[in-house]
Parts: sequence; C-alpha cells; structure tokens
Amino acid sequence: MARHFAGGTLVIATHNRGKLAEMEDLLRPYGVKVVSAGALGLPEPEETGTTFEANAELKALAATKASGLPALADDSGLVVPALDGAPGIYSARWAGESKDFGLAMARVEHELKGKRDRRCYFVAVLALAWPDGHIETFRGEVHGSVVFPPRGTRGFGYDPIFLPEGKSETFGELASEERMAVSHRTVAFQQLVEACFRPQRA
Amino acid sequence: MARHFAGGTLVIATHNRGKLAEMEDLLRPYGVKVVSAGALGLPEPEETGTTFEANAELKALAATKASGLPALADDSGLVVPALDGAPGIYSARWAGESKDFGLAMARVEHELKGKRDRRCYFVAVLALAWPDGHIETFRGEVHGSVVFPPRGTRGFGYDPIFLPEGKSETFGELASEERMAVSHRTVAFQQLVEACFRPQRA
Repeated sequence: MARHFAGGTLVIATHNRGKLAEMEDLLRPYGVKVVSAGALGLPEPEETGTTFEANAELKALAATKASGLPALADDSGLVVPALDGAPGIYSARWAGESKDFGLAMARVEHELKGKRDRRCYFVAVLALAWPDGHIETFRGEVHGSVVFPPRGTRGFGYDPIFLPEGKSETFGELASEERMAVSHRTVAFQQLVEACFRPQRA
Repeated sequence: MARHFAGGTLVIATHNRGKLAEMEDLLRPYGVKVVSAGALGLPEPEETGTTFEANAELKALAATKASGLPALADDSGLVVPALDGAPGIYSARWAGESKDFGLAMARVEHELKGKRDRRCYFVAVLALAWPDGHIETFRGEVHGSVVFPPRGTRGFGYDPIFLPEGKSETFGELASEERMAVSHRTVAFQQLVEACFRPQRA
C-alpha cells in the first residue's frame, strides 16, 4: 500500500509556471499547499534517466533532498513504436532550446516517412518523494495515432499531431475539458491522489 | 540509388576489436581494406543522438571527418515496446562502465515485472559516410520475445534473454551460424553491401 501524504507543503519539482498552476488546481481539494522548485531557487537536475520513471524519480528526489519537504515531479512524452519508442524521454529535447514543437513534430513526420504503423501514445509518470528517500510512482497513458499535418491550436507540445483512439479531433482541436478527461496526465494524477491523498471536508 | 564505395581503405568507427574483426571478415570479399578508428587514434564521439540512425550517423561522420577516409559505424540495441522502447539506444549504457550485461538483463526483468507483453526486437543500424558529408544508412531488425532466466553462454549483450520468433533457443544458446543467419547485424549488413559494394573476382 502506498504511503499517504500527511499534509503541509509539497514541492512541485518544475520550473514551468503552467505545470505549477495545473498542479495547484488539482491538489487544492486535498488541502495541499504547493510551492515550486523554481520559487525555492532549487537547481534543475540533469535528466540522465533512461526511462520516464527514472527521470521523474530523479527530479522528485533532487527536490526533496534540496528542500527537506516532500516533492512531486513528472516526466512525460510521446512514444512512437514505429520509431523504436522515439521521441520518448527525449520528447521535450526534440523541440530544442527554443522549445519549437513545430520543429519536433516535423521531425516525427520526417522519421515516419515510409512507415505505415502510425500508432503512438502519450505517457506521464508522476513521482512523489519523501525526505527519507521513500518514493511512489504512478503512470498514465493515452493511446492513439500520429496524424499529419498538425491540426488545432489548443494544448501544447505534440498535441496537434495526436489523434486519440475513438475521437475524430486531435489533442490540438479538442476542447480542454474533453482532452483532460482522457489525458495521460489525468490518468497518472488520478492514481496518485487515490493512493496518496485524502479529500478534505470544507 | 545509393552511392557505391569506390575501393581503398574504409575506417570502421569502433574501438571494439570484436566488431572490427567481424567487419574485416564480412568486407574481405569486396576487396575492402579496413582500419579501426581506435588504430588511427581517433577520439570516440559522445553518443548524443536520440535514435539509432542519429547515433550511427554521428559516429560515422566524426570518423570520416577526422580521417579524411570513408567510414562505417553501427549503432544497435534491444527495443522492448512494453518499456516504451527501453533500453533502446541505451542498451550498452544499461550495462554500466563495467559492461555488466548480467546487470542490464536483470534490469530488463525488473522493469518488466507485472507486464504481460514480452515482445522485443534487436535493431542494428549501419551508417556509411564519405568525407564530402554524403551518408547512407541501413537498418536490420530481428523480432522475438524476452525470456527469463537468461539462457546460454554464446553471443554477447542481451543475447541470453532474446528468444527469436519461430525458434526454441535463445541467441545465447543458438550456434553462431544459426544466430548470424537471422541476426539484425546480418540483415543490416546485407542491405549495405547490396547497395554500396561490388564483389571482387579472385
């Protein structure tokens, strides 16, 4: 059985303001105060892991070690089996320093030339680490296929080329609520809260 | 149509004596003299690519640039779809500095706990680069499944946990000739020679 979060402040191991705001909203019903690793001036560790789990764990452990507080980190990406799993843990890095996901999507299109299998899936792994080194990880996936050209302006990253199974609109076209209902982040988050958090009464 | 190798000396971009000997044997019928990057004192480039193709290309380009001669490099690994493609391009690195593939195989077993899908495949990509920057790449794959515990003492790397499709013996158990007949390296090599080399008459 997973360890429960005892309350108090949780460090979100991200320097991304969007991710912080999302986590803050999601954790509010559980009476959790959040602070970002960026606000605490914590350094960003190098993502030397070779799996999503390893990268989420190293980010959470670095943040809990540096702050003395429990810390939550995520690692996520797009896995294309026909590309041996690429971009995978490199999904953000394919966009380069300038975070140009147009470039990253063009590279997926280029690498898939001549390959018929267009299946793909998004993965999100959340890792919750405690100062004593205990760690819990949770994984969410959403399966679909890669489509070109990119469609829609919502979401971010590879969303415009991701067509979820059973839908006719990409993650770039779907309304936010519809996308969130099936997203890999939501699935991972639901598992995290079921295992580690208790809802607070108002 | 692929560019042909015009004859003369080819640099094999490896510091591994076993790989060099294998290439030397394979290329002898084509009248190719080979020299290793190690023997020329060329530095080993960092494998910063995010795909097998990218790593093979950067190794071949580094060797041709440093030597002024055409250069052949390979990149290979084991892809496990249930692990999002891991260890993939990290296959050698999972074995650590001490090249302990017992450790690497144990890690595959650990990561696969609770996952039913045991399909996997070996990939080999060969890249042949010329001093003017022209480059050709060739890919071989062999599909099968991961089995535990490891079986057999032949081959190297992940061979003892790789059961090829349609066989009852792992790559660690099969006789060398039988393994070579279906191996990912053989498939990649056959494509390379068909595209770029002409057999020499005795």
